[in-house]
Amino acid sequence: MTTSSWSWRYDRYEPDRERLVEALCTLGNGRFATRGSAPECTADSTHYPGTYLAGCYDRRTSVVAGERVDNEDLVNLPNWTLLRYRCLPDDGPPGGWLTPDSEDLRHSDVALDVRSGVLTCRLLFRDGRGFGLRVGHTRMVHMGAPWLAAQCTTFRAYGWSGAVEVESVLDGAVTNAGVERYQHLEGRHLTEHRTGFEADGVAWLTCRTVDPGTRIALAVRTVTRPARPALEAATRTGTVQTYRLPIAPRRSVMVAKTLALRTSMDRPAADPLTAAGDDVARAPTFPQLLATHEAAWQRLWEQGELHVPGEAGRILRLHLFHLLQTLSPHTAELDVGVPARGLHGEAYRGHVFWDELFVLPYLSLHFPEVAQSLLRYRHRRLPAARAAARRAGRIGAMYPWQSASSGQEETQELHLNPRSGRWLPDHSRLQRHVGSAVAYNVWRYARSTGDRGFLHSAGAEVLLEVARYWAGAVTFDPAPRRYRIRGVVGPDEYHDAYPGVTAPGIDDNAYTNLTAAWVLARGLDLLGELPAARRAELREQLLLDDEELARWEDVSRRLYVPFHRDVVSQFEGYGDLAELDWEAYRARYGDIRRLDRILEAEGDTVNRYQASKQADTLMLGYLFRPQELYALFARLGYRMDDETWRATVAYYLRRTSHGSTLSSLVHGWVLARQKGADAWRYCEEALLGDVADVQGGTTGEGIHLGAMAGTIDLVERGITGLEAGPEGLRVEPVALRELPRFAFTLCAGGHRGVRVRVLPGRLAVRVPASPQGALTVVLPGDRRFAVAAGEERWFRL
Amino acid sequence: MTTSSWSWRYDRYEPDRERLVEALCTLGNGRFATRGSAPECTADSTHYPGTYLAGCYDRRTSVVAGERVDNEDLVNLPNWTLLRYRCLPDDGPPGGWLTPDSEDLRHSDVALDVRSGVLTCRLLFRDGRGFGLRVGHTRMVHMGAPWLAAQCTTFRAYGWSGAVEVESVLDGAVTNAGVERYQHLEGRHLTEHRTGFEADGVAWLTCRTVDPGTRIALAVRTVTRPARPALEAATRTGTVQTYRLPIAPRRSVMVAKTLALRTSMDRPAADPLTAAGDDVARAPTFPQLLATHEAAWQRLWEQGELHVPGEAGRILRLHLFHLLQTLSPHTAELDVGVPARGLHGEAYRGHVFWDELFVLPYLSLHFPEVAQSLLRYRHRRLPAARAAARRAGRIGAMYPWQSASSGQEETQELHLNPRSGRWLPDHSRLQRHVGSAVAYNVWRYARSTGDRGFLHSAGAEVLLEVARYWAGAVTFDPAPRRYRIRGVVGPDEYHDAYPGVTAPGIDDNAYTNLTAAWVLARGLDLLGELPAARRAELREQLLLDDEELARWEDVSRRLYVPFHRDVVSQFEGYGDLAELDWEAYRARYGDIRRLDRILEAEGDTVNRYQASKQADTLMLGYLFRPQELYALFARLGYRMDDETWRATVAYYLRRTSHGSTLSSLVHGWVLARQKGADAWRYCEEALLGDVADVQGGTTGEGIHLGAMAGTIDLVERGITGLEAGPEGLRVEPVALRELPRFAFTLCAGGHRGVRVRVLPGRLAVRVPASPQGALTVVLPGDRRFAVAAGEERWFRL
Repeated sequence: MTTSSWSWRYDRYEPDRERLVEALCTLGNGRFATRGSAPECTADSTHYPGTYLAGCYDRRTSVVAGERVDNEDLVNLPNWTLLRYRCLPDDGPPGGWLTPDSEDLRHSDVALDVRSGVLTCRLLFRDGRGFGLRVGHTRMVHMGAPWLAAQCTTFRAYGWSGAVEVESVLDGAVTNAGVERYQHLEGRHLTEHRTGFEADGVAWLTCRTVDPGTRIALAVRTVTRPARPALEAATRTGTVQTYRLPIAPRRSVMVAKTLALRTSMDRPAADPLTAAGDDVARAPTFPQLLATHEAAWQRLWEQGELHVPGEAGRILRLHLFHLLQTLSPHTAELDVGVPARGLHGEAYRGHVFWDELFVLPYLSLHFPEVAQSLLRYRHRRLPAARAAARRAGRIGAMYPWQSASSGQEETQELHLNPRSGRWLPDHSRLQRHVGSAVAYNVWRYARSTGDRGFLHSAGAEVLLEVARYWAGAVTFDPAPRRYRIRGVVGPDEYHDAYPGVTAPGIDDNAYTNLTAAWVLARGLDLLGELPAARRAELREQLLLDDEELARWEDVSRRLYVPFHRDVVSQFEGYGDLAELDWEAYRARYGDIRRLDRILEAEGDTVNRYQASKQADTLMLGYLFRPQELYALFARLGYRMDDETWRATVAYYLRRTSHGSTLSSLVHGWVLARQKGADAWRYCEEALLGDVADVQGGTTGEGIHLGAMAGTIDLVERGITGLEAGPEGLRVEPVALRELPRFAFTLCAGGHRGVRVRVLPGRLAVRVPASPQGALTVVLPGDRRFAVAAGEERWFRL
Repeated sequence: MTTSSWSWRYDRYEPDRERLVEALCTLGNGRFATRGSAPECTADSTHYPGTYLAGCYDRRTSVVAGERVDNEDLVNLPNWTLLRYRCLPDDGPPGGWLTPDSEDLRHSDVALDVRSGVLTCRLLFRDGRGFGLRVGHTRMVHMGAPWLAAQCTTFRAYGWSGAVEVESVLDGAVTNAGVERYQHLEGRHLTEHRTGFEADGVAWLTCRTVDPGTRIALAVRTVTRPARPALEAATRTGTVQTYRLPIAPRRSVMVAKTLALRTSMDRPAADPLTAAGDDVARAPTFPQLLATHEAAWQRLWEQGELHVPGEAGRILRLHLFHLLQTLSPHTAELDVGVPARGLHGEAYRGHVFWDELFVLPYLSLHFPEVAQSLLRYRHRRLPAARAAARRAGRIGAMYPWQSASSGQEETQELHLNPRSGRWLPDHSRLQRHVGSAVAYNVWRYARSTGDRGFLHSAGAEVLLEVARYWAGAVTFDPAPRRYRIRGVVGPDEYHDAYPGVTAPGIDDNAYTNLTAAWVLARGLDLLGELPAARRAELREQLLLDDEELARWEDVSRRLYVPFHRDVVSQFEGYGDLAELDWEAYRARYGDIRRLDRILEAEGDTVNRYQASKQADTLMLGYLFRPQELYALFARLGYRMDDETWRATVAYYLRRTSHGSTLSSLVHGWVLARQKGADAWRYCEEALLGDVADVQGGTTGEGIHLGAMAGTIDLVERGITGLEAGPEGLRVEPVALRELPRFAFTLCAGGHRGVRVRVLPGRLAVRVPASPQGALTVVLPGDRRFAVAAGEERWFRL
């Protein structure tokens, strides 16, 4: 009988679904990540995804349903973690290679310690002869020295003596094969492999991506205790170092591997192999690496942690762990964005979507340098967004719905409905609202951090070019005497066309139009606040004349927003669509999150119904506090108030299938902003997204980074009603029975490490000692208090 | 008769030395720079240095005086500017190729407009037949779009008609050949050239550096008016596009070239040739490029300018121009340091020294993002500095005296005395004080900008590792019961050994010891102010135990400082050296700046004399205000006061040959800090460094960036006694008859664009409108005033 368990600690959590292991046990440091839980052993190592490098993409051509498709994919790098092992007993024939799938496995136990960023597993094998082998394995991707990773494996014999044969493998014959439905896409991204060994027993492998030819080098040092020389064998794409380690009953032997990983994208510019060789030569011992790695994680926790008690707290800590290991302070050194699935799997092929909208608020408040670097990533791709707009006959910058290294559009043009087996045209690239998300992030980051250096330089270029895109994308409709935006897709991907109409896209998506108006208004604000010569430079660069700015002003005040039955229409004509019989579908299918696939398989289309995959109109309630939102409607000449907004919220809550992990998160936000006590229900749902794999198997293909970050942010900013800005720190907590007390640390008003504690009816703010001036805290009712550096103050709510 | 002139404008300055043209007319944008004044025309284009790319180094091996030397050199990139032209009159044989050296040249006029960053030249040729050709040329390296450069050349015929034949050349057969005394070094850095043409008439060239294999691509679009097709010819290393442009008397034709330059170091990662092709295809017309380029320069002037009237102001503006085009906001995107000669020439082979000590104060106050990126450049090379320390048997980080991309020591081991023709061992790498300069820059940047995000992360690692190096580099001497630092070289490179002693280095250089003590004290301060988990992480990472910290404290209080005759000794035993007969040497040699070479050629050595090449001990007076300096001495248990310090200053002023451009600058600082009215004399001397080429020909090999930046900073911070810090803006101007009024703009207290105006007996501070709080201004006598955002206040001094 085999018993197995896995868990993460801090403090322990024990979900029951084994297949989550692969994704949730990924380890990373913001520069690279490595997957997999066990000390692997397999003849066919290509089944074991290896190491993903942040920002490393390769452009390949695939043929999908007869169509030629070019796409940039996140690259699955050579696997450095592989070990193969078997028992060579003195009295008896050699045992077979032992694997976690072996029938000799008696017990396995995998644990991820999120506090220290360490993965451990323990395996117990016992064969028919009663010969036992216990395998203990510890692995990390170093959070202090971002080029290093290491693992240590111990073997202990029970009931026999002889030797353990261990093969330490470095395998470059990897492909992207982690997502089953991508199997028809070209998965080979590495070429020109070279391998070899150094005199000191270091094995190395170099290769490059096909396009743009990024050079990659891995150097692995394997040491054993007792020390033994290796039998070395190199193939074209990998190396094997074989050790025979003498073992006796109840005695242990050890194999430790240290990896240095360098690429031609690194700074300083150097030959990657030389650099990796130097790194691995300088790397300290495994225990020393472990100690510095754990200390680095401690620092991240101190800087970033949210203290929430109980089960929710445990899940939030897992979320924070995944966020920080995907987007750590090391990320700020790189040219990388926010891949929707982190560096945890190949789903969405590593592409960058709008998910940073849910990630940046947290990072701006805790790791502002990382937030800024993610915005600079967008700024570096402004030329690509400008070129995309020009190709589409537009002005300004049209950010792509999905992008990768080049910043070009990478959205698939066809997608497969696994339910019907049909390939369908994919119009999701018409989600032009992604540009507004980028502009929003720029503005909010600058407000929250006070970083006008960024806002006035790169930030202004991005924001103004997105504003300009919107001013050029509208058409004036003389009938309502308003501007309209036609042929787009909103955040709700269920609606990509009007029923019975061939042309893709819907008109006047309320979310798209309102955020476009917001971006135009902020563009004008920003031009007003820029220093004169910078304003002149940008106007010259963009050839922005007074006439065009007058148009911005006009469009920002006269964009059309559709309404029906006294609620905001998700888009023009939404109210005319048929109502879905939700109960009937739930009864028939159970899980109707992917209602689009269900209806398509039935020969119907979701475009016919008032049914949303995820929050669309209600996203407005995520982005804006009610008063901000009402002011935005008012600027457009529409009346919006609590009553209408509540009605709108209720309307769409009843018509959403939650086909995205972001959906319940956004609904939680909207309700928190309405100070609704039911906010917590959605928050709890959002917390389960990955740990319970509610999207049915998608977590195994990579975690949902936006949803993970969003849950932390929902507690910190949403439930707390917190806003950091030039006027200080505004707080207005929602009283939640389920979350009576919590605490967190953030950056505000130029102070780092400001601590906020929320208790029933009370709230404390502590400002760390520094030469800075006091922090202004603004409480409900616009009560203002100054908290001096080095002071903690308690407030009654 | 030929008349020729050159000048720079804003407003006009007309030096008389033609050979300065090459260096001072370099154009750059912080990413790359291109040299040369004229629309070149030469058969041997390798004599024309082309384009330098920031941070692009190549490692080559040379043999010097029988020794094998490895060195990283700044790479001279392919020349994109080349034009060749000649007249093809209808009636008469073709004219010869016209060059600025041609005897047909009648007039030439080269002007650099520093306000707009544009170089223009006008040439007039007239041959024996009376046929005239006027050539007008305008060139820029674009400050707004950092991958672009462009030039436009017009030709106008006088007295003949026919055609002008123009060859537009892209030449990759360049070598590093800009410094005559480096001719024995390997100058070829480019390999694997490929060339070609695109259908739209774009010529391209790709190549890579030998090591580390940086890939480089240039795409050049040439357009002519009237439009004519090109005859295209490609060689292995270059392309030529030949145009025949029909011309009539008093009619003009035009040839414009636009360059896009990309490398594999760029972000986003892309194939450089594809990226360059895209860039050049998207580039607007020459007039549009000119307009946006000029607008970008206007912004830099607004953000950075110092308004000083008269001659000094004109030179300061030239200095600022050179500083900003070497280290512009675009630099912050790159992995580059402060090359001592900018990107203006090949002297010092592009290496990075300690010169940033003179550059960072200015950048911190005007372009803080650029300052931070230069410090991050040092931080990325911390592993190399640690490795260097380990190889030298030391702990901590030992930053190299000269470095390049890899961060390794690049100082030559032999140097040539051109006067004696002898190759001599070069011990300048023993200038360990460069590490203290890096640490000092980290600390001062953080104080000036309030950027604790940087200080606590990368900054702390650098500062603590340098402190640790010093704590490990001292030896305890029981006799004076003090710590000593032996075997170093101070800033004064004349003294690299004791006379008659074989071992290199001198002991207890006062500057080295005092700055080491300062770094140790700041290291302890910093550990005290770090957040707990970050402190714990660093202590774990560096294995810093209490015992070692106690040693830091002890060393920081008991480092030995030598004195003699009531003045600080430059190093132990300096007072025992012979006095030089300065008058006799001045009489015999005139210019004795390179006294070391003179004495060596005489069979003597400067090591025997109390003679300094440049400020050494007096550098302390540049780094520290008198009160800070006295406190530093006091912490070490030495008494220092105005009297002793003035005596020390006077002592060394009499014994310095000013063999470095930094020397008079530092002396100007020291005197300004003593509120001495004679400060201006040294400042004026420093201003002449490059414009009068006072080092005798070195400006042609590249400008002296540290000295240029230092002069601006001397006026802004030195003469103004200005210090930006957490307590606000401290100002205490020196009343100088020669500089009664000036003004500048800076960043202080989180405000950008704070304007300071100094008038006799009065001073104004204007804070721009923003949501930020007031700026505190601290005047002499510790009088404190708050200046609110949007307000200007005048103060009596």
